[in-house]
Amino acid sequence: MRAAAAWRPATDIESTAMNLDKKSLLAWAQDHRADFESTLQQFVEVPSVSSEPERAADIRRCAELAAAKIRGFGGVASILETEGNPIVHGRFDVDPSLPTVTVYNHLDVQPASAETEPWKTDPFTFIKEGDRYLGRGTTDDKGPALTALFAIRAAHEAGVRVNIHTIWELEEEIGSPNFEGAMKKYAEQLATNSVIVSDTIWVSRERPACPAGLRGLQGFELSLETAKTDQHSGVVGGAARNPIGELMKLVTKMYNATTGKVKIKGFYDDVMQPSKKELNDFKNSGFTVKKFKKDHGFKSIRTEDPMEVMKRIWALPTMEVHGLVGGYTGAGIKTVVPPRATVKISCRLVPNQDPKKIKKLVRDFVKRHNPDVKISFEASMEAYKAPTTGPLANAVRSAMKFAFGIEPVFVREGGSIGAVVSMEQVLKAPVLFLGLSLPEHGYHAPNENYDWQQASGGMVAFVKYFEEIAAMK
Amino acid sequence: MRAAAAWRPATDIESTAMNLDKKSLLAWAQDHRADFESTLQQFVEVPSVSSEPERAADIRRCAELAAAKIRGFGGVASILETEGNPIVHGRFDVDPSLPTVTVYNHLDVQPASAETEPWKTDPFTFIKEGDRYLGRGTTDDKGPALTALFAIRAAHEAGVRVNIHTIWELEEEIGSPNFEGAMKKYAEQLATNSVIVSDTIWVSRERPACPAGLRGLQGFELSLETAKTDQHSGVVGGAARNPIGELMKLVTKMYNATTGKVKIKGFYDDVMQPSKKELNDFKNSGFTVKKFKKDHGFKSIRTEDPMEVMKRIWALPTMEVHGLVGGYTGAGIKTVVPPRATVKISCRLVPNQDPKKIKKLVRDFVKRHNPDVKISFEASMEAYKAPTTGPLANAVRSAMKFAFGIEPVFVREGGSIGAVVSMEQVLKAPVLFLGLSLPEHGYHAPNENYDWQQASGGMVAFVKYFEEIAAMK
Repeated sequence: MRAAAAWRPATDIESTAMNLDKKSLLAWAQDHRADFESTLQQFVEVPSVSSEPERAADIRRCAELAAAKIRGFGGVASILETEGNPIVHGRFDVDPSLPTVTVYNHLDVQPASAETEPWKTDPFTFIKEGDRYLGRGTTDDKGPALTALFAIRAAHEAGVRVNIHTIWELEEEIGSPNFEGAMKKYAEQLATNSVIVSDTIWVSRERPACPAGLRGLQGFELSLETAKTDQHSGVVGGAARNPIGELMKLVTKMYNATTGKVKIKGFYDDVMQPSKKELNDFKNSGFTVKKFKKDHGFKSIRTEDPMEVMKRIWALPTMEVHGLVGGYTGAGIKTVVPPRATVKISCRLVPNQDPKKIKKLVRDFVKRHNPDVKISFEASMEAYKAPTTGPLANAVRSAMKFAFGIEPVFVREGGSIGAVVSMEQVLKAPVLFLGLSLPEHGYHAPNENYDWQQASGGMVAFVKYFEEIAAMK
Repeated sequence: MRAAAAWRPATDIESTAMNLDKKSLLAWAQDHRADFESTLQQFVEVPSVSSEPERAADIRRCAELAAAKIRGFGGVASILETEGNPIVHGRFDVDPSLPTVTVYNHLDVQPASAETEPWKTDPFTFIKEGDRYLGRGTTDDKGPALTALFAIRAAHEAGVRVNIHTIWELEEEIGSPNFEGAMKKYAEQLATNSVIVSDTIWVSRERPACPAGLRGLQGFELSLETAKTDQHSGVVGGAARNPIGELMKLVTKMYNATTGKVKIKGFYDDVMQPSKKELNDFKNSGFTVKKFKKDHGFKSIRTEDPMEVMKRIWALPTMEVHGLVGGYTGAGIKTVVPPRATVKISCRLVPNQDPKKIKKLVRDFVKRHNPDVKISFEASMEAYKAPTTGPLANAVRSAMKFAFGIEPVFVREGGSIGAVVSMEQVLKAPVLFLGLSLPEHGYHAPNENYDWQQASGGMVAFVKYFEEIAAMK
């Protein structure tokens, strides 16, 4: 590992020490590979699981590690406190008169357990297998965050004249509950001209893909209580209400689990259909049903038509049942009538759908069909429609083409990144995407991984993007 | 506590030392109350939970305690080994030429946890609150078992000339998987002229009730696996199948959770409707909807019509969802598409319904509506139609009337006792019921309890029943 070069104020920058051709950039990446890998190891081995309150100390440790790393690279780091987990802000300023571009990533990760999930290696031990890096957070989103950080350093060494900031969130996996508040609180310090988010997934390794939009999210829990304690089904069965059965019936009224179609009237009213150009990009994205099924380990899916699958995962809203709490879940059968149950559901939403309106539709539907059922709403995120034209979108296009040899397709991202809408609205800056993850990296899944091809290519792409912005004004 | 009188062979019995009038019997019970309570305490404080494999040592301890208690009362005890938990057989023989009556109870109990269930006291600590005894197993079925045992002793002291045996099972709460095998294996030793089961519940304290029938049971699990691991609903949601949603839809097709009505064609075909006389007994049973709701802590039930409730809990088959395994059940929402789920269901069956036929109907239905769903069948028990006429039924009538002052109604028992059908078929003996539990005792529920009124009345009733049999031929 080489010592990081100190960040010099812009006025000190003389001539460019490094050429910005692809070969030089890749050579730079190769020179820094060992450093990148040991840094990623340090980050992966801090289990910064934001959904587990007992990991609070690890979250804090991760923030401190991130700040130290930024400082080690010559940047100015601040740990911004919020009502929840902190945000790490990094500044690599060259000259206040130059434009600023902010790279957004998150450093918190999904829960992982080698005991209950089929991990082949310990999720919080970094494993290098040739070009592949295994461990929770390698691809979502610590690997891409560090890829961008190394690119910032390369851009600096190359003398790219743009101020580069980083925003590293630590609550993304729990729906960014305090992110918008923090954006407002620290707006002055966080001011930027544009944001580039690196937390999305290509359709296939063969062709880069950038989101033209993100789906939103509306989570909710339906609860029904009909008694106080378990009752013997021999004694009361037939007359007693069964809260699990009633919730199953209600859910089945709400959506057709076979097709996925939501049956709540008005649910699809505001859905913005993808344009012809978008559908064309979908078609050229490299998506195949076979690969989709293989990547996710699906035995069968709802339809085998590739265009239909792409529409459903990117451009249409969904309803999903995540779990049911209540009743007997041990071995065999315990013949109880359970007193209460809760079902966990969420809807992915698409651009133009308003979570508030969806909440009202769901609430009214539940009230009409089973008025005893209580509803509580969880994480709510608006969908996002990203720029696909204009200088910034074109900069993403050329950066991706430069690094990976082929122009990216603009598809939709089926997931939600709550922070995106907040940054757009509060920082009043356009938000674009330069994602590096691949379907086979296993987002949110066991055996999550990242690889050197995406990391090194990503470094080249980011440097190029920074250079495009520097050249812009 | 007085020392137990030694059991003398019949030939030694001279004159009856105790009168068989109600007053004397109640006085005898009162004299033995402290002994009864300390014995019940000993039994309750052995947590003989048959559904928890880690309780195997407690099950064994309970069997040994039971055998010791029988021997202490002058009987001959054997611990009969089975493929599973043992059966404790007690013999209080007077003369081989006399008829034999066998009392069946079980000494295993339902699981109980003060941590996850609203127990006010520790479930495996015996608590005496005035006339009330609290603890797991007090009413189901250790209290009634010991009530019968004390009655056997009283009958002996009174010189009642009948051989009395006890069968104490230790696997009743898990569906008696090895009971029928044991009946066959030990048939010679267990030979008897009739069986009286004490493991049922009155409709209300005001009037004794005896089952004219028991419901049977057919449990099953439906499982669906559509992927290998959790998948991100943002990435695959819309195209991925959701096994929880599909199982909910299948269950909703199988039965209407609002009314309880099973929608599988042919399910009700063989149901034997209760006779006019039975319906009349239902009407006179002391059942009220208000009390039913209060006893079980129900906020609301499926119908408020008392006759309809009685039919549904006693004389009609049911379908019940007990729980669902799979998906995310932690706090809040985790936006995964779960890879697999299993739903636990059982049907209570009524006399004339054949579990084999029900299994076939369910299997065919599932195959037709969701062929990917795997079905596995659990505990299967035939329903039972008990004698309500003839000398034995009349003996139960007079014993109950003698002890509790009012003739019992013959209603149906909504629960299932797997052992009943086995004893009838293997031992070729009629099986009758003399239950002592009350709805407010909380069968299978937290804060299970029993009381001295039912224990002392039960002792009187059992002695009278033994005397009626002795007087019979």
